[in-house]
Amino acid sequence: MNQQPIGVFDSGLGGLTAVRQLRRIMPSENIIYFGDTSRVPYGNRSRETILKYARQDMRFLRSFDLKAVVIACGTVSSNCLEQLQAENDIPVIGVVAPAVQRAAALTRSGRVGLVATRASVRSGAYERAFRTLAPAVRLFSRACPLFVPLVEEGRCRPGDAVIEQVAEEYLSELKAREIDTLVLGCTHYPLLAEVIGQVMGPEVALVDVGAESARAARTLLTERDALAERPEGAASFYTSDRAEDFERLASLFLREDVTNQTREIDISHY
Amino acid sequence: MNQQPIGVFDSGLGGLTAVRQLRRIMPSENIIYFGDTSRVPYGNRSRETILKYARQDMRFLRSFDLKAVVIACGTVSSNCLEQLQAENDIPVIGVVAPAVQRAAALTRSGRVGLVATRASVRSGAYERAFRTLAPAVRLFSRACPLFVPLVEEGRCRPGDAVIEQVAEEYLSELKAREIDTLVLGCTHYPLLAEVIGQVMGPEVALVDVGAESARAARTLLTERDALAERPEGAASFYTSDRAEDFERLASLFLREDVTNQTREIDISHY
Repeated sequence: MNQQPIGVFDSGLGGLTAVRQLRRIMPSENIIYFGDTSRVPYGNRSRETILKYARQDMRFLRSFDLKAVVIACGTVSSNCLEQLQAENDIPVIGVVAPAVQRAAALTRSGRVGLVATRASVRSGAYERAFRTLAPAVRLFSRACPLFVPLVEEGRCRPGDAVIEQVAEEYLSELKAREIDTLVLGCTHYPLLAEVIGQVMGPEVALVDVGAESARAARTLLTERDALAERPEGAASFYTSDRAEDFERLASLFLREDVTNQTREIDISHY
Repeated sequence: MNQQPIGVFDSGLGGLTAVRQLRRIMPSENIIYFGDTSRVPYGNRSRETILKYARQDMRFLRSFDLKAVVIACGTVSSNCLEQLQAENDIPVIGVVAPAVQRAAALTRSGRVGLVATRASVRSGAYERAFRTLAPAVRLFSRACPLFVPLVEEGRCRPGDAVIEQVAEEYLSELKAREIDTLVLGCTHYPLLAEVIGQVMGPEVALVDVGAESARAARTLLTERDALAERPEGAASFYTSDRAEDFERLASLFLREDVTNQTREIDISHY
């Protein structure tokens, strides 16, 4: 048993989809979430800038006494998981390997698609992970740079002509590749599952990286006998821009109300 | 005569549309441009964060010996021009007042529209400026939060279904107001002039805030007898993320090639 909290961070609000899954499958855990809304999005920035921001995010989270950190950000996981693991003496869980394992287990044709930010695709992290974990799989990747701004605008529901148009455009070439499994490689994308499902059709399985990283965290904590034991865990939220703006959108990602639970911090001090 | 350079900054690349105008109407001036690409966009952030970033941008530019600064960013101009003017002992020129003066001179019906970022619209700066400079004008404002991400993706040309759809949606309500003049209140938007013109029709005059601020800078320097005198001025570019990424898009905004002219700086040190 270990009652210390789990730290979770993302460039913005997307990581809350992972928090939702963590709370669902490990309701006793305390969670500390940081969303770097003053610098969101990360997905078009250079690797150097992403690493610099991720190190600050980690340093802030490590100001709490944590038992593990979940990097609920596809862009950070793809670009600098190894560095962050090397620099920290607690388990650091990214989204890439858990999602790749899941996709490899789901695919029958061995043809898997990936949609992610430009920086995630450019990193080649998914190719490397498939090569190690499931070398028979053929991966087809597509950067979707407008998905994050659209989701952060709340433009994610079927019937919204703009998101439907953008999804059609981004996904058509993956559809032509006849994939049977699609990794949603960014924690914002679960909010687009319906729209993406509409375009890809019901025969394509969608892999939610946030849900898979939550499962990976549970496996790891179970193996180490480090799960918490309490009736109900608590979540606290930190943001680098206005708490009010964070909370307005957070309910969309978390599907629960978090009014007056968020504190603002100055991430440049970390 | 004053041979010192003019400093110009923006959250990202949009301000280069103002640089283009500055170079066109004052070709003898040296220009130092900073684009804060590691933190772009500013337009959805809180006023506090915008002010913090703008002060750092100013401090970086003031590390050069400048004769004036042009804030080629609608969001910063709308939210913190007065503070930056009060904190600096050289002229600081924003985009709001010059654009408002131009719109007031152009409108015949007295019905003027404004498209800008969410933070610019929320600031109320344009309403205040019209109240002071042209109280008879009725202003109709519309925040267009997806315009900047679309332009930064290069999705700005007629024929692109996504930008046309988004423009139609944002502008339809302004069109219904029967405005005859539309202020493009963000330095990214001149790249959308064709698409916006298509939706609004040829009878609506478009005001380019970058061009107006360039004109305001020339007027001010002329009055102070502070124009430069040399055959041809030079421009240097600084960015807070990768120079390569900056230069790839910069030509779109500047309409000239700037390969190998950009240096990277760490804005968090300022």
